[in-house]
Amino acid sequence: MSAKIIDGKAIAADLRARVAGEVATFRAAAGRAPGLAVVLVGEDPASSVYVRSKGRATREAGMESIEHRLPADTDTATLLALVAQLNADAGVDGILVQLPLPAGVDTQAVLLAIDPDKDVDGFHPVNAGRLATGMPGFVPCTPLGCIMLLKSVHPTLSGMDAVVVGRSNIVGKPMAQLLIAESCTVTVAHSRTRDLPAVVRRADIVVAAVGIAGLVKGDWIRPGATVIDVGINRTDTGLVGDVDFAGAVQVAGAITPVPGGVGPMTIACLLANTLDSARRREGVA
Amino acid sequence: MSAKIIDGKAIAADLRARVAGEVATFRAAAGRAPGLAVVLVGEDPASSVYVRSKGRATREAGMESIEHRLPADTDTATLLALVAQLNADAGVDGILVQLPLPAGVDTQAVLLAIDPDKDVDGFHPVNAGRLATGMPGFVPCTPLGCIMLLKSVHPTLSGMDAVVVGRSNIVGKPMAQLLIAESCTVTVAHSRTRDLPAVVRRADIVVAAVGIAGLVKGDWIRPGATVIDVGINRTDTGLVGDVDFAGAVQVAGAITPVPGGVGPMTIACLLANTLDSARRREGVA
Repeated sequence: MSAKIIDGKAIAADLRARVAGEVATFRAAAGRAPGLAVVLVGEDPASSVYVRSKGRATREAGMESIEHRLPADTDTATLLALVAQLNADAGVDGILVQLPLPAGVDTQAVLLAIDPDKDVDGFHPVNAGRLATGMPGFVPCTPLGCIMLLKSVHPTLSGMDAVVVGRSNIVGKPMAQLLIAESCTVTVAHSRTRDLPAVVRRADIVVAAVGIAGLVKGDWIRPGATVIDVGINRTDTGLVGDVDFAGAVQVAGAITPVPGGVGPMTIACLLANTLDSARRREGVA
Repeated sequence: MSAKIIDGKAIAADLRARVAGEVATFRAAAGRAPGLAVVLVGEDPASSVYVRSKGRATREAGMESIEHRLPADTDTATLLALVAQLNADAGVDGILVQLPLPAGVDTQAVLLAIDPDKDVDGFHPVNAGRLATGMPGFVPCTPLGCIMLLKSVHPTLSGMDAVVVGRSNIVGKPMAQLLIAESCTVTVAHSRTRDLPAVVRRADIVVAAVGIAGLVKGDWIRPGATVIDVGINRTDTGLVGDVDFAGAVQVAGAITPVPGGVGPMTIACLLANTLDSARRREGVA
């Protein structure tokens, strides 16, 4: 038996098309396009690729992409001034500072300076707190995309046993919050977990987000479980996830591939968050 | 075999004595006492009892208790004005609005108005977000007390399997965050959990915080596990916890009684949070 492959590319394309349609409605009502400002400091090649593809996707959705590219020696004060300017700019609905910032910059200070109501990445502690307490806010794009992929298989998640492997602020912890809000029984496992195979084996839903190529073996997967692989690890044999796909696909009920699973959802959710922000800010439904 | 009884009263008394000692040092350094403002609206008898005992404990620790008692028909605007005044008052280090507020008041608006840096209850979403992202802030008193009780039995919790039964904003969810920070493998269970006995049985640490008298049965407890009972339920036979104590005490390795377990820790942790706030605000170590 072989698992259903969850087609993140297709689901992300659907979401992007839906966002584009709603952007057109927003533009007609508000008289302007939603605007996403992206700040890139320095020449990190991977960051440049991400920023380019975010910009393209933003424009394709009918939104305005405002790109600020700064030299690698930009200091914290200059970045804080730019963030303050973007916070005050009525045409900017979302602000994204591409990480990592150069070593000399106070990354924490820069991220904390972003207006939480324009923090479409959902990394600001105010948005983490809103998520933790069930208030409306911005949810980090990757876990938001994972929930959508899960719901493409299971329209309701209530009562399912979910395991999140990894406890990062950007994926693992918000993922756990979202699964709790969906009424899953949620276990957070990590590097100190004593018997990770046993913990994974009891789950109906496995979300792997640790950044270790092939950590989760096929024989850890409960037959029929749904596996969401957040990992994107560069190896000699190409991009691979945190799950041993070849093994897991024989056992799981459904599984995301790498690439083409979670990855495409992240940008699509960024666009959806930016549209949401624009609607809230303009009071347009 | 009978479990070790975790003596919350004694541990709380130790903490209060330690706080009182450090308050004396603070007063000498800062030239003033730490101040805790408590706002009570209306005549709810349970709330009056809580406020009275908080005030007494505050004074006993050498701190100033500032009590504002308002009539039951106080409106939201009046409360917001009082909170603003307390936020601005340099002698106030902690602000506690006793819940529940009367039905006509916008509780959410009042709680959001409290300066997060004086939110010694740790209920503000900014503090929930700080906890979720590992930043310094105020942790809700009850889960903070539970961690102290656990550490009285297990000086390090790393790698232990913990189950939190209940997912409230005030106890269950911050409890899970604290246990994750302590490197436990943490499962959050709740009313939608399919097989709660099985989930509880696999845990080295059980924290019950659902508000259902005797929900957790003795034969759900893994032999030797440590059981923390947050429940305080009024029944015909008196105050009882969420755990069937008579059954669980036969199986557990250690267990908190009700009353005399978690309860006394909550006020002690409130005092500790208020002292921490005063130190941060005055820059006194």
